[in-house]
Amino acid sequence: MRNWISPSLLVITFILSALGHYAGWDPTLQFILSAIAVIFVAGFLGKATENVAHYAGQRLGGFLNATFGNAAELIIAIFLVREGLYDMVKASLTGSIIGNLLLVLGLSLFAGGLKFKVQNFNVTLAGLNGSLMIVAVIALFIPAVFLNTHSITASETTTLSLVVAGILIFSYIAWLLFSMITHKKYLSDVADASQGELPHGHETHWSKRKSIVFLILATVMVAFVSEWMVGTLDTITARFGLSEIFVGAFLVAIIGNAAEHSAAILLAMKNKIGASVEIAVGSSLQIALFVAPVLVFVSYFTGNTMDIVFTTIELVAIGVSVFIAKSIIQDGSTNWYEGLLLLVVYIILGVSFYLV
Amino acid sequence: MRNWISPSLLVITFILSALGHYAGWDPTLQFILSAIAVIFVAGFLGKATENVAHYAGQRLGGFLNATFGNAAELIIAIFLVREGLYDMVKASLTGSIIGNLLLVLGLSLFAGGLKFKVQNFNVTLAGLNGSLMIVAVIALFIPAVFLNTHSITASETTTLSLVVAGILIFSYIAWLLFSMITHKKYLSDVADASQGELPHGHETHWSKRKSIVFLILATVMVAFVSEWMVGTLDTITARFGLSEIFVGAFLVAIIGNAAEHSAAILLAMKNKIGASVEIAVGSSLQIALFVAPVLVFVSYFTGNTMDIVFTTIELVAIGVSVFIAKSIIQDGSTNWYEGLLLLVVYIILGVSFYLV
Amino acid sequence: MRNWISPSLLVITFILSALGHYAGWDPTLQFILSAIAVIFVAGFLGKATENVAHYAGQRLGGFLNATFGNAAELIIAIFLVREGLYDMVKASLTGSIIGNLLLVLGLSLFAGGLKFKVQNFNVTLAGLNGSLMIVAVIALFIPAVFLNTHSITASETTTLSLVVAGILIFSYIAWLLFSMITHKKYLSDVADASQGELPHGHETHWSKRKSIVFLILATVMVAFVSEWMVGTLDTITARFGLSEIFVGAFLVAIIGNAAEHSAAILLAMKNKIGASVEIAVGSSLQIALFVAPVLVFVSYFTGNTMDIVFTTIELVAIGVSVFIAKSIIQDGSTNWYEGLLLLVVYIILGVSFYLV
Repeated sequence: MRNWISPSLLVITFILSALGHYAGWDPTLQFILSAIAVIFVAGFLGKATENVAHYAGQRLGGFLNATFGNAAELIIAIFLVREGLYDMVKASLTGSIIGNLLLVLGLSLFAGGLKFKVQNFNVTLAGLNGSLMIVAVIALFIPAVFLNTHSITASETTTLSLVVAGILIFSYIAWLLFSMITHKKYLSDVADASQGELPHGHETHWSKRKSIVFLILATVMVAFVSEWMVGTLDTITARFGLSEIFVGAFLVAIIGNAAEHSAAILLAMKNKIGASVEIAVGSSLQIALFVAPVLVFVSYFTGNTMDIVFTTIELVAIGVSVFIAKSIIQDGSTNWYEGLLLLVVYIILGVSFYLV
Repeated sequence: MRNWISPSLLVITFILSALGHYAGWDPTLQFILSAIAVIFVAGFLGKATENVAHYAGQRLGGFLNATFGNAAELIIAIFLVREGLYDMVKASLTGSIIGNLLLVLGLSLFAGGLKFKVQNFNVTLAGLNGSLMIVAVIALFIPAVFLNTHSITASETTTLSLVVAGILIFSYIAWLLFSMITHKKYLSDVADASQGELPHGHETHWSKRKSIVFLILATVMVAFVSEWMVGTLDTITARFGLSEIFVGAFLVAIIGNAAEHSAAILLAMKNKIGASVEIAVGSSLQIALFVAPVLVFVSYFTGNTMDIVFTTIELVAIGVSVFIAKSIIQDGSTNWYEGLLLLVVYIILGVSFYLV
Repeated sequence: MRNWISPSLLVITFILSALGHYAGWDPTLQFILSAIAVIFVAGFLGKATENVAHYAGQRLGGFLNATFGNAAELIIAIFLVREGLYDMVKASLTGSIIGNLLLVLGLSLFAGGLKFKVQNFNVTLAGLNGSLMIVAVIALFIPAVFLNTHSITASETTTLSLVVAGILIFSYIAWLLFSMITHKKYLSDVADASQGELPHGHETHWSKRKSIVFLILATVMVAFVSEWMVGTLDTITARFGLSEIFVGAFLVAIIGNAAEHSAAILLAMKNKIGASVEIAVGSSLQIALFVAPVLVFVSYFTGNTMDIVFTTIELVAIGVSVFIAKSIIQDGSTNWYEGLLLLVVYIILGVSFYLV
């Protein structure tokens, strides 16, 4: 990364993608252009986040990264909710959760593990993250079980969805309170001890102000490019004979998480595996505990509440992802084979969704 | 607790509750009086248990507490079994297990965590407790799966229920043998190392004999008051439009576990979190491994065997409670946020059961 | 084991069993003779494996043991596949996985725990094994869920089965690469530290060459005797009114794993619990990640692909076995009660399968 992604390529691909979108070029061409542009703006976002993280400290950096990565997804999802495409929303939320836990985390562990024999990180934080993931799975799982085994009216389903959504947002705010305020020092003390030194200054060229401005700019660019790409998906779906659930859960999710992908993998290859885990797990937690419930409330205010009931295969996909990710991160030590195992589960899920 | 619950208030609320019950006052009034009385007698039981625990050692104290707490529940459940109210029995057993693992443990961790940043306890014992909980879940889960997927006759169901019940009681006796005899020193050595000193004498005023007598007296009082309260539930259920499963799994269970609640929370606030965990987990294990199977045999001798097959939502409630509780206690370190997570799962289950 | 199983008894029981088989004696007599012969040839295999392990190092020894134990099973299963008895194959694969995780591991921990208060082994390896087991369960679970919730054509099921089988074999090869090559030293360093010294020479009498020759000879003998015994099962099943699924999942599996049983238990009683765990867990992993997928490909080349979709109760049996085994081995410390818990789950499953 010494000679980082050329700024001119970033600008060119972004403009080409914009031209394709607004001039209405052939959808397949639009798709390819925006996909390439996503790679560059995601790289830009990763670089900006790294710079901000340099000033903010490693863990807060990971948190910022997850937030800015999911900002794009939240915007796209709100757009889908306003059009009433609830199944697509849930598929892309599912894909985002499993994409972070399996693909992003898997690639990070694998790439980091090829370079470093064993990578270690704070096991206390990993344990807490694991418990939080389980609570998220339970919160999504319980309403589905009750709906499938008992006759519940539509209005009761709405009530249950709003209550569960409210509880999830409350849990997320309490988590920020816990990790940023009451136990910030406790968590970072352990993290410092296991993560060692911060990177040296020779990689960091931007000022604090420039870093923040670029972070915001990069996020906005990611949001635009992602949306242009999503706009072409209907045509791509029809043209290549893919199912909507596969497109929602895999294509959209992979594109929407491109920023986390590149940032997490780069950090892993610099042996900052703790930050990689924080990005991947933190991002999936944010989807489950914040983005999904916010969408329930957004839909409620549009007058047609989206329930929080996911399909069986979505719940199974989320459940097994949490289960294997928790098993792998809980000892605070990772290697290339553990990354491979996460990727193996992702591929099995991908093939299964593709065949449905 | 320096100026502990006034003995006169204890006696007055107990007598008022008794009067209400035997004179047949309005059920809502009876319910309120007995609910208040439960709070006081449970406090009395907690105090008595603490005194006995002072002489018996911390872990045996926790065990005694669980035993005496569940004595009340066992008596109530046998009464329900004799009336053939098997669904109510299973709902209250379910409620008791999840109430201990989520509400009692959650409040203990939360209250203790507000006072102490991080609380630690013996991780070896926590691991064993976790495995034992999983075996209990498996033992309840397997018969339900086989019944739902295959055609099994009523007599085969009875056989399976008796076999599973017998195996569970055997496991429980073996656990007592293990933890009290063959590995007593091993477990308490580790416990001592992580728990530190016993509390100083200035809190303990009762003699050994008085402690034991009061423990027995308090248990009897709890049993009586609990039963009076349970007697009013039919009317309360009808009057306030609650479902039987919600009343059984939440109201009855909360009341029946009031003793564990107060004792566990008090211990947590005195930084004896290991004893709190032992009460909560030990009590739920005792319900699953001892109380439930004993009820199967009791019903067998009444000529109409209660099977050990719980409903899907009961099994899901027990399963997710064990799963999250195990995840939280397995590192031997707790904080307020982990307590909150347990309470969050309890509330989600409560709302779901309420809506059914 | 000082005066090891008399070679003459080994030869006599083997010849009697062969006579019974080829002369067509009464099936029940054949069954008894071959069962006794299995005990002796399994003991012989255990002794040979121990000798080879002495030269190969403890962990490789465990791996060799699992390989040679499963060689017999693979041969038997290929024979069943060629006859199209797919349900019997899956039942015996299921039985082999749960037999290793519950019966072999349970007896090892129990027997070792009666002799040694607490036994310790490498927790890093245990964690990796646990994650690998979870991936195996997920790989078997996902296709079943998709098939049960969606309408998938027979040809799609074949595709999915072949893809999943291919991924599992790939994972297994990658595991060998990881544990034998890239991280061999890392894993054995940790293992040495926790396992202590190798056994002294007074027990080892065979030369390196003799050990290897006897290992091969013993494996061949186990394969023959196992097959003779399996040949009598049809008659035994009918005569004693047992169900095929019970016979496949319990009788066949126990017989097929007799070698692992004796070797693992002997090692546990010599305080080499790490090698016992490696045998039991390694063997079950090999069944799930290698034997089962190889059988899918073998059946594919016979023109009638066996799908990889197990029944609900088989998946539940595998799932709960992995879950409890993982919970028990993950702290790297074992005792007799943990062995008992594994046996309890095995008995509950056995009774349930028996009643179906």
